[in-house]
Amino acid sequence: MAHSACPFCAGHEDLTPATLAQATDSNGAWQVRIVPNKYPAVAWDGAMGVGSGDVLGKAAQPPSGAHEVFIESPRHVQDIVELSVAELAVVLRMYRDRLRYWSADHRTRHVTLFKNVGSAAGASLEHVHSQLVALPSVPPVIAEELDAGQRYYAAHQACLFCDLLSEEVAHQERLVLSDESFVAFCAYAARQPYETWVMPKKHAASFEQLSDIEAEALAKLLQQILRGLGSSVAPLAYNLLLHTAPCGQQDSPNYHWHFELVPRSTRLAGLEWATGMHINPLAPERAAARLRERLENKG
Amino acid sequence: MAHSACPFCAGHEDLTPATLAQATDSNGAWQVRIVPNKYPAVAWDGAMGVGSGDVLGKAAQPPSGAHEVFIESPRHVQDIVELSVAELAVVLRMYRDRLRYWSADHRTRHVTLFKNVGSAAGASLEHVHSQLVALPSVPPVIAEELDAGQRYYAAHQACLFCDLLSEEVAHQERLVLSDESFVAFCAYAARQPYETWVMPKKHAASFEQLSDIEAEALAKLLQQILRGLGSSVAPLAYNLLLHTAPCGQQDSPNYHWHFELVPRSTRLAGLEWATGMHINPLAPERAAARLRERLENKG
Repeated sequence: MAHSACPFCAGHEDLTPATLAQATDSNGAWQVRIVPNKYPAVAWDGAMGVGSGDVLGKAAQPPSGAHEVFIESPRHVQDIVELSVAELAVVLRMYRDRLRYWSADHRTRHVTLFKNVGSAAGASLEHVHSQLVALPSVPPVIAEELDAGQRYYAAHQACLFCDLLSEEVAHQERLVLSDESFVAFCAYAARQPYETWVMPKKHAASFEQLSDIEAEALAKLLQQILRGLGSSVAPLAYNLLLHTAPCGQQDSPNYHWHFELVPRSTRLAGLEWATGMHINPLAPERAAARLRERLENKG
Repeated sequence: MAHSACPFCAGHEDLTPATLAQATDSNGAWQVRIVPNKYPAVAWDGAMGVGSGDVLGKAAQPPSGAHEVFIESPRHVQDIVELSVAELAVVLRMYRDRLRYWSADHRTRHVTLFKNVGSAAGASLEHVHSQLVALPSVPPVIAEELDAGQRYYAAHQACLFCDLLSEEVAHQERLVLSDESFVAFCAYAARQPYETWVMPKKHAASFEQLSDIEAEALAKLLQQILRGLGSSVAPLAYNLLLHTAPCGQQDSPNYHWHFELVPRSTRLAGLEWATGMHINPLAPERAAARLRERLENKG
């Protein structure tokens, strides 16, 4: 089962740094392992090299934080659709538990969790895995969302994301899938074809609030979406991005955790870099219709 | 000389939309042609398809504007280093003149000009060319810079970019090249290895203020930098991004036009999408030192 050169396969544990946390099956064999990233982008001890200078009074800060890898199966599989629903639910609970762990660390202000699948999405290893980055500051993308959420709340006394969700459910046209707990829809301002967001129906600012039952439902839903995407985009490369509240804001009434699932089929070119605007040749309404069709055909 | 299948080569003018403006040599043959983009991202007449819905009271707007292509040589060359300095100076003057043209159009609020070279930078045609996008609003990247410039000016009664330039010249460590009119330096917060910015020494908010003499100097400088980059990064793919003031703010004391030259050697992955932060494995001080070394060796 193990791939001879793969550092993430069972039996090759000596090729990765030591286990930080793990989930085991009933026989005590690991099912999910969390290890430090061997090539970290950030480190708490200031060990990462930085430029020597400062500009306009701002000194360069060493990139500070923790960078960890979730190895999501002992088997050499490449995507979470190849796991059982129960196995993926364990992975999702591990995300939640590790977020809680880092939230309790006084150095952490925000935890980012993401998955790169396929080389077009920046993956360098094919064995199914995700990455966690705990940071001492709130990153720009999340800060912008928080700000929008706060402004909306001040104006409407309601959660921007809850209201967005209600509208998407009412309009139907961008809806992909829903169950008791979650809704998946193609994003209104999708940056890439088939960009799909997954949100809990019940208001929850942080992924740390995920229940075990929700983990099971979410696992099932994510796999359905990925199967639909897999039959619409070939080869499918994607980033799965967890957006969750900063540490200490887990109970915020104006933020709402969600996954942004971004298939990577077009390259960012000069226009995107120059303007921050994205060209997406596929309208989200059409993308959603196609995904719904694929999902129905699969029963 | 013409490449048989290339729509941008001389003799193949019927393969592109009709010429909007051109520069000719002393024999009347075109040297630079501006044509509408055959596959525009924006159009003034609202002809571009958009999603049907609206969310939270915001209706989808058709992507409005003009999208043009500068064909920068009648010969099938792939990069501006293969032009003569005089030829590239003509191209740069065409940029300036076309910016002035669109600035005078009452529908335009900002003009973006950029170049994609190499497939890793999003280029789909190899024949040397750039693109211009005239927009009815100021795009997010420029709006953020304007905002920073205004805040800095309010606090210091000085141009942020002029002060940045003085510091870079004083510190030397990120300097790549300079002449009487321009300074090139590796960006302090470079997003990619060897990201290099080119700025006029004299305060000027808009590229529309470029003189003919400056066009000549800029052509020479850009070619030197690209030669240095070409011997440092192989194969070199890059985006050249013009940052210039919005229409009507050409005389702003707190904005300063510049080129951002971004070699594209690493792929944006989940971390960049999730956070808006960039991992750059090469410190700008080291990148600048290497570029200086290459440039010295070339004499």
